[in-house]
Amino acid sequence: MIYVGIIGAGSCDPKTFKLAEELGYKIGEAGWFLVCGGLGGVMEAASKGCVEAGGITIGLLPGRSRSDANPYIKVAIPTGLGEGRNILVVRASDILIAISGGYGTLSEIGFALKTGKPVLGLNTWEGIKGIHYLSATEGLVEDILKILSR
Amino acid sequence: MIYVGIIGAGSCDPKTFKLAEELGYKIGEAGWFLVCGGLGGVMEAASKGCVEAGGITIGLLPGRSRSDANPYIKVAIPTGLGEGRNILVVRASDILIAISGGYGTLSEIGFALKTGKPVLGLNTWEGIKGIHYLSATEGLVEDILKILSR
Amino acid sequence: MIYVGIIGAGSCDPKTFKLAEELGYKIGEAGWFLVCGGLGGVMEAASKGCVEAGGITIGLLPGRSRSDANPYIKVAIPTGLGEGRNILVVRASDILIAISGGYGTLSEIGFALKTGKPVLGLNTWEGIKGIHYLSATEGLVEDILKILSR
Amino acid sequence: MIYVGIIGAGSCDPKTFKLAEELGYKIGEAGWFLVCGGLGGVMEAASKGCVEAGGITIGLLPGRSRSDANPYIKVAIPTGLGEGRNILVVRASDILIAISGGYGTLSEIGFALKTGKPVLGLNTWEGIKGIHYLSATEGLVEDILKILSR
Repeated sequence: MIYVGIIGAGSCDPKTFKLAEELGYKIGEAGWFLVCGGLGGVMEAASKGCVEAGGITIGLLPGRSRSDANPYIKVAIPTGLGEGRNILVVRASDILIAISGGYGTLSEIGFALKTGKPVLGLNTWEGIKGIHYLSATEGLVEDILKILSR
Repeated sequence: MIYVGIIGAGSCDPKTFKLAEELGYKIGEAGWFLVCGGLGGVMEAASKGCVEAGGITIGLLPGRSRSDANPYIKVAIPTGLGEGRNILVVRASDILIAISGGYGTLSEIGFALKTGKPVLGLNTWEGIKGIHYLSATEGLVEDILKILSR
Repeated sequence: MIYVGIIGAGSCDPKTFKLAEELGYKIGEAGWFLVCGGLGGVMEAASKGCVEAGGITIGLLPGRSRSDANPYIKVAIPTGLGEGRNILVVRASDILIAISGGYGTLSEIGFALKTGKPVLGLNTWEGIKGIHYLSATEGLVEDILKILSR
Repeated sequence: MIYVGIIGAGSCDPKTFKLAEELGYKIGEAGWFLVCGGLGGVMEAASKGCVEAGGITIGLLPGRSRSDANPYIKVAIPTGLGEGRNILVVRASDILIAISGGYGTLSEIGFALKTGKPVLGLNTWEGIKGIHYLSATEGLVEDILKILSR
């Protein structure tokens, strides 16, 4: 089983939402697990897509209440660690995809690269050596398989 | 969905294994999620029972490698927090069941009661006010429903 | 340098306060560091005693604000981990002393014994194998030195 | 009391070492606390400078052993959280200074900016909006005071 982490802003514009949803759909379709921070924006969009494709979504929540999860999270894990749960999102993922995103996403990108996890980027922080930048969701599944088989 | 945490020793005698397996079976049969530390002993026994009943098992692992999980864990989350992950097992559970167990289990019992989570006990640390002690796995599902509906 | 962790309830009666203060005084007088959760009750009493003896106190706080620390904490570390910081109190200590205390203290006792740290107990959870129970603060410094030299 | 976090690579060239040492000296001279990850490279250099100026250094270590700390750490806190301790370095600091650094430093920069902590940068990750870039250690103390008084 492959666990794909999706990281990105907790609120986003409709275009980014659609992109993340498409991405989540492909992950669900591939039969993989989607890991995220469990809240709104990119996390919700990707979870929605994944669930629509019949996939499983895992949300690692900052607070203590399971009800903070967006409605598309199947396995909701409250951590009580605040933004510290970003680290767990990285630890739980085999590969991460950053879509858009602000400082929280930057912390996750840094932590992922530090701990040797591959990071794909789509409209996210630019110019960070180590990120595999994508221009579209096409070929995503093949890219992930190729990177993980190295 | 109810998330039931199972806490207990990482290695155990056959009688305790059978008890934990029975318990896991009932949780799976009830359609609930089983949360545990993902390793051997009581954790493995309960996971085995749960999976045999068609249930979902979530393992919050101390190390960084998903392959540390016992073979009955369906959702394996490496945390890299060492025994610190005990706290996450409690945070992720709505109710906890302690079976047998040593000091790690004691830390989880304390943390669960501190954070207001109900704790059921079966052949575990004695004399701790706040634990609902059980003498058998009979009536477990009803007990859990009764306690959680308070 | 020896780091002595003091664990106990966040609020306490005057007798327990006095006992914890005495204990903190002895730690400060010995020139050791006192580690605690940084809040009130036993933590404040022990910190007060330690500081009065010219000692250094380290408070590992559950919240994000340094101002949550009691006035006798010299090094205040906000963790943002909630009660999860109990684990850090144990990790930061070479030896722990439990005075009185409720479920939070129980979680710390369990975690300390699990990770091989010696635990002294004074009017605290009874009947836990592995705790070195004390009946008074007399001989504390000698006891600590003897245990740590094993 | 002001707690200044120093983040940067665990090994560094002599020029960066000297820069970090100068910076640590200024922090110690100002009478502030220096917080860092407690290991080598930039962390060791800054700690050395701080201690030489008579300051106090706090090291939040990734492992479980206090002896992992560099020799200039006065308060050594083993956390057992692995790189997860990066989050604690940020939580414990009022303001952070990034010097040089790789992915771990990037994760700390992201986490600091996410949680609203000011970040100064010296020869570090470029082009990150929100970092106050410095070109030298001159005026550091005044810069910190100005930023924190806002």
